[in-house]
Amino acid sequence: MSDTVFHYTHRVTYAECTIGNHVYYGRYLDLLEAARGEFFRSIGVSLQSLYERDTAFPVIECRLKYKSPARYDDRLVIEVWLSECEGARAGFEYRVLNQSGALVLEGGTVHVCTTTQEKPRRLPPELKELLRPFVHTKV
Amino acid sequence: MSDTVFHYTHRVTYAECTIGNHVYYGRYLDLLEAARGEFFRSIGVSLQSLYERDTAFPVIECRLKYKSPARYDDRLVIEVWLSECEGARAGFEYRVLNQSGALVLEGGTVHVCTTTQEKPRRLPPELKELLRPFVHTKV
Amino acid sequence: MSDTVFHYTHRVTYAECTIGNHVYYGRYLDLLEAARGEFFRSIGVSLQSLYERDTAFPVIECRLKYKSPARYDDRLVIEVWLSECEGARAGFEYRVLNQSGALVLEGGTVHVCTTTQEKPRRLPPELKELLRPFVHTKV
Amino acid sequence: MSDTVFHYTHRVTYAECTIGNHVYYGRYLDLLEAARGEFFRSIGVSLQSLYERDTAFPVIECRLKYKSPARYDDRLVIEVWLSECEGARAGFEYRVLNQSGALVLEGGTVHVCTTTQEKPRRLPPELKELLRPFVHTKV
Repeated sequence: MSDTVFHYTHRVTYAECTIGNHVYYGRYLDLLEAARGEFFRSIGVSLQSLYERDTAFPVIECRLKYKSPARYDDRLVIEVWLSECEGARAGFEYRVLNQSGALVLEGGTVHVCTTTQEKPRRLPPELKELLRPFVHTKV
Repeated sequence: MSDTVFHYTHRVTYAECTIGNHVYYGRYLDLLEAARGEFFRSIGVSLQSLYERDTAFPVIECRLKYKSPARYDDRLVIEVWLSECEGARAGFEYRVLNQSGALVLEGGTVHVCTTTQEKPRRLPPELKELLRPFVHTKV
Repeated sequence: MSDTVFHYTHRVTYAECTIGNHVYYGRYLDLLEAARGEFFRSIGVSLQSLYERDTAFPVIECRLKYKSPARYDDRLVIEVWLSECEGARAGFEYRVLNQSGALVLEGGTVHVCTTTQEKPRRLPPELKELLRPFVHTKV
Repeated sequence: MSDTVFHYTHRVTYAECTIGNHVYYGRYLDLLEAARGEFFRSIGVSLQSLYERDTAFPVIECRLKYKSPARYDDRLVIEVWLSECEGARAGFEYRVLNQSGALVLEGGTVHVCTTTQEKPRRLPPELKELLRPFVHTKV
């Protein structure tokens, strides 16, 4: 039984780089958001469609470890999976690799499920079912 | 009778720079927005307070001329004035200079006055009065 | 004889949106840069490879007309072509459309060809040849 | 003996906000960088001047806890101090508060001291001396 991981690819632009030709430390959070958005789309429930059903996933925590710099024109692969998914809480994990397979970044974001009025709510059961294959401790 | 110009200062960060140590071409629009916000505050009507009175100023056009690069740690002065202010339309002009007085950028943004529901409306007369000293053709 | 236009697609993220659910006015310049980068790759000369041959294309002017707001999750198509390409100068033109075909933005950027030491130089003839099919007045 | 904390203030712009009127989760890292830059300036050694003496401080880790949303036009205070400063390593801590004193964000960034060629080096003793008053466990 394999651990399921979503893959998202991204080409690094000048907009994301800073002096010294590396991606600015805060821009990785933009990339993780883009990857997360495509992940939800890939399991059939875009964040937009969830929002229209009164469900949002604000981030309450994040942590990032910068392993090696991503450079202009690098083709990054962002791996996405979940470490937890219980009650109103979901934990996403990420690894970013460049085209040579070098590890660029490891990180995680913790989200709470809320209504669009920012009140906590349990994850909808059908969504939890769709997320289940991605919940694991990746080695 | 002198032409009145608002001055806003800004210290350049790494977040705004790209490879080669210059401010990314799109980030100047962020700086112009910050300068515009402080300009409105300086004449006593923050954009937030206008919004609460059903008045917004979306940008419909902009043009920028990049004259010399702004670098990390530069202390920029952004000059703000208006070229026009009639009906539902307001034209802002900007010059950005660095700490040596070198011209970094010249630009303009055209705004329409709207309700918060995005319907065009005439500029409120009391606002027009406050803007008047800043409307001129700067030499 | 048809006018050749390059198409680039982009999914709008939260990172690009501001209050009121529309793309922030400065973020379009990030998108145009990404589109331009893929355009150069599509004709076989990435900006990275040009840079390694001592050729860069800094922007000296831009102008944007905001026609209708792009929203979160919109799938944008960015059309790219050139209006001019002579001497050391290249003018790019853009149209951004959403998934319904609505016009979101029209714009242009003017670039000069320089060495990596920022000295102007004529466009390399082989590059000019590759750009030629895209130089036209689009109707 | 009191714990010394540096304070940096920032007015929230539209550029930093996303849908729903709150600061985008990645933009806080831009603000922390700006605060850190002013902190170094305040102790008499700008990051630019350190760089010119072959000393840089790349971030190798960060963690953020989002406590309550910062909104457009909020006047934020960013508190900066250090949790550690030994060998080649420095740990910065931050708290962001809004104009009502509400806690917006808690976070930390871990930096390594390197040469401008990205080789690790020990913190220069004179810099360590200047940082010492800010190294503590804030309660």
